[in-house]
Amino acid sequence: MIVELINTGSELMLGRVLNTHQQWLCRRLADLGHVVTRQVAVADSGRDIQQAVREALGRADLVVTTGGLGPTSDDLTRELIAQLLGRKLVPSPEVLAHIEAFFAQRGRPRPASTAAETLIPEGAKFFLNQYGTAPGLALRVNPDGTKWLVMLPGPPRELRPMFDDAVVPWLGREFPAETFVCRTLRSTGIGESRVQEMIEAGVQPFVQAGLQVGYCARPGAVDVRLAAGGAPAARLVQAGAAVVQEILRGHIFGFDDDEMEAVVVRLLTRRKRTLALAESCTGGNIAHRLTNVPGASVVFLGGAVSYANSAKETLLGVRAESLRQHGAVSEAVAREMAAGARARFGSDFALAVTGIAGPAGGTMEKPVGTVFIALASAGGVTVEQRLNPWDRVTFKDVTGTQALELLRRKLVG
Amino acid sequence: MIVELINTGSELMLGRVLNTHQQWLCRRLADLGHVVTRQVAVADSGRDIQQAVREALGRADLVVTTGGLGPTSDDLTRELIAQLLGRKLVPSPEVLAHIEAFFAQRGRPRPASTAAETLIPEGAKFFLNQYGTAPGLALRVNPDGTKWLVMLPGPPRELRPMFDDAVVPWLGREFPAETFVCRTLRSTGIGESRVQEMIEAGVQPFVQAGLQVGYCARPGAVDVRLAAGGAPAARLVQAGAAVVQEILRGHIFGFDDDEMEAVVVRLLTRRKRTLALAESCTGGNIAHRLTNVPGASVVFLGGAVSYANSAKETLLGVRAESLRQHGAVSEAVAREMAAGARARFGSDFALAVTGIAGPAGGTMEKPVGTVFIALASAGGVTVEQRLNPWDRVTFKDVTGTQALELLRRKLVG
Repeated sequence: MIVELINTGSELMLGRVLNTHQQWLCRRLADLGHVVTRQVAVADSGRDIQQAVREALGRADLVVTTGGLGPTSDDLTRELIAQLLGRKLVPSPEVLAHIEAFFAQRGRPRPASTAAETLIPEGAKFFLNQYGTAPGLALRVNPDGTKWLVMLPGPPRELRPMFDDAVVPWLGREFPAETFVCRTLRSTGIGESRVQEMIEAGVQPFVQAGLQVGYCARPGAVDVRLAAGGAPAARLVQAGAAVVQEILRGHIFGFDDDEMEAVVVRLLTRRKRTLALAESCTGGNIAHRLTNVPGASVVFLGGAVSYANSAKETLLGVRAESLRQHGAVSEAVAREMAAGARARFGSDFALAVTGIAGPAGGTMEKPVGTVFIALASAGGVTVEQRLNPWDRVTFKDVTGTQALELLRRKLVG
Repeated sequence: MIVELINTGSELMLGRVLNTHQQWLCRRLADLGHVVTRQVAVADSGRDIQQAVREALGRADLVVTTGGLGPTSDDLTRELIAQLLGRKLVPSPEVLAHIEAFFAQRGRPRPASTAAETLIPEGAKFFLNQYGTAPGLALRVNPDGTKWLVMLPGPPRELRPMFDDAVVPWLGREFPAETFVCRTLRSTGIGESRVQEMIEAGVQPFVQAGLQVGYCARPGAVDVRLAAGGAPAARLVQAGAAVVQEILRGHIFGFDDDEMEAVVVRLLTRRKRTLALAESCTGGNIAHRLTNVPGASVVFLGGAVSYANSAKETLLGVRAESLRQHGAVSEAVAREMAAGARARFGSDFALAVTGIAGPAGGTMEKPVGTVFIALASAGGVTVEQRLNPWDRVTFKDVTGTQALELLRRKLVG
């Protein structure tokens, strides 16, 4: 079965908004066993929309469109598709009643512009909109009934519940899917090419049996994605994952949507340990990421962003002599920052980072990207030196991930 | 001139990552006068990539692809396109030298798998990768030289600087565009519908003359986008922008890609003033954003992320009595945090934020989303109370923007 997705919207083509529908729908459909083979975005123009739909229907068994079902002048999808397929638009009493109830509940008169939303292509199935007015629509395209076109409204808060509540059950009846299993192993500390070199031979037997292996490089991390379809899917993915985990061992920090900061908060919570931070060059990146995780306040006591040298002295008790003798970017200062943060916050662990984010500030001896990462615990302070010669924002992300990884390794022993 | 974009990557079709390339490249190309008419995403499969490229080349003058240029086994784009266009892949000594220098700089041996990256389709132009190994490629598709295919690497930190530094100048020479002017005015402190209501009548005459007006709501900000094409474009956009600025006056904090944090760093730098932070509920969001701005170290001395109450006392000198009497989320504590940060860091200004990010921790009197923002300066401390009942991550973003806006207003008088 072939599934294609079409996203309509001029704002997409002008690059004014991010197309979150693609990821959301592709993810949902893949999890249901229907991997989307092609996604297309076009502007709100009759010619572009009709051409994209016509081509997709030529290839696919199921075409899903998003957007263009609303009441404004640039909402064209319903009419264009009815025209393309030679269907009349007919009034739906059920849809009209639903839209009238929607406005009655809000104590507002129904705007005249919603009239277009009460029309549906002849013979179409509709999905009522629980969070808006425009219904979703499903059309059997050919007489023998194997080809369908599904139209969904553009706003995510309308589309997502409609898909989960109405489209998923319908899909299950109309297109019973074969099993599809996908698992991502998230690694850190090794580059993308090295990851592939390490695991290639090990996964080879599973690849021959139908396992798909993909790689995705992220700042400071490499994702290995294992996927398979059909009856042996679960077994294949599980066996492949076991081999990859064995080979990459300590480098695997999480699975699927796990972020490093969430993994660290989880480990600290389980072990009832607390953390403090002393950030210089990462400038709050680590604190910001940790506090994005709900429940972080239980284990994260706080941090000092000590950009200026004086802040390193005042807030963290770094000695002026160490700063003079070794410079702010040095093993000695990283060590004192970590120890200082642990003492000031009274935490079990403290991470400290000092380095040169660039673009300016590098020297021959300490080029841009040089960074010292220290971890203080009851057993003392360990310091690692790294070189992360990336742009400023990536430097902060990669360095933050390395610091959290240092703590993660300590926590998992 | 017709431009199409093709994003390759199985992770896109499986919904494992968000396609940020689409927005970024569509935006950049539109700003250069080339609005993308179709964007397609396909998996890393030979058949799908070649079919998408073949179809796009049938319609477009310029086709841009992203992804599939790296060293791993699922990086197929270079080879597939060379095959499709009947070009041999030939070694490029310049690309080889660049990749060897990349690894030499990092003190690592060049992995054997990077060999594929040193091959380029015969006759192709290449763009060296300043932040990675795989070069970008530009291929003249037809003999009369009006059709081009441009291949860009997948990682955003490689693609974006390559596009800005190398592809944009090349595009300007190869495809001189008709005038297209687009200007975004960034406002804060008013909702999207209210912004539209306020400016609608004022911009009407320009809209009738061809000005396009668009709105985009962001966390804590609303962008007003003015665009026009052809000879009168610059005049129309300028006149429209003047009217919008007059109506929204103090709510406009920046233009185009100005971020609030960059505006604040610029203002502080110009006025030779320094800033410190005391962040509780924003958890490092403000420090992280400020330190993303190159040159921030000149004006940003540092901050305390005081998640735990003890940290508010130790690092910022907030009185235990204030915490007991008013609670951590209170005007009194915000005031003491700001004054404490200003004193400890010795800065001209200090911003302090304390609130309830949620999802837990709300009460009847102080519901989730309650926040106090304080600004300390030589003249004393001012405190504002806000209610930002959003999800945790949005709450942090919106609150951070409100705090920076408080300082911005102070700085512009």
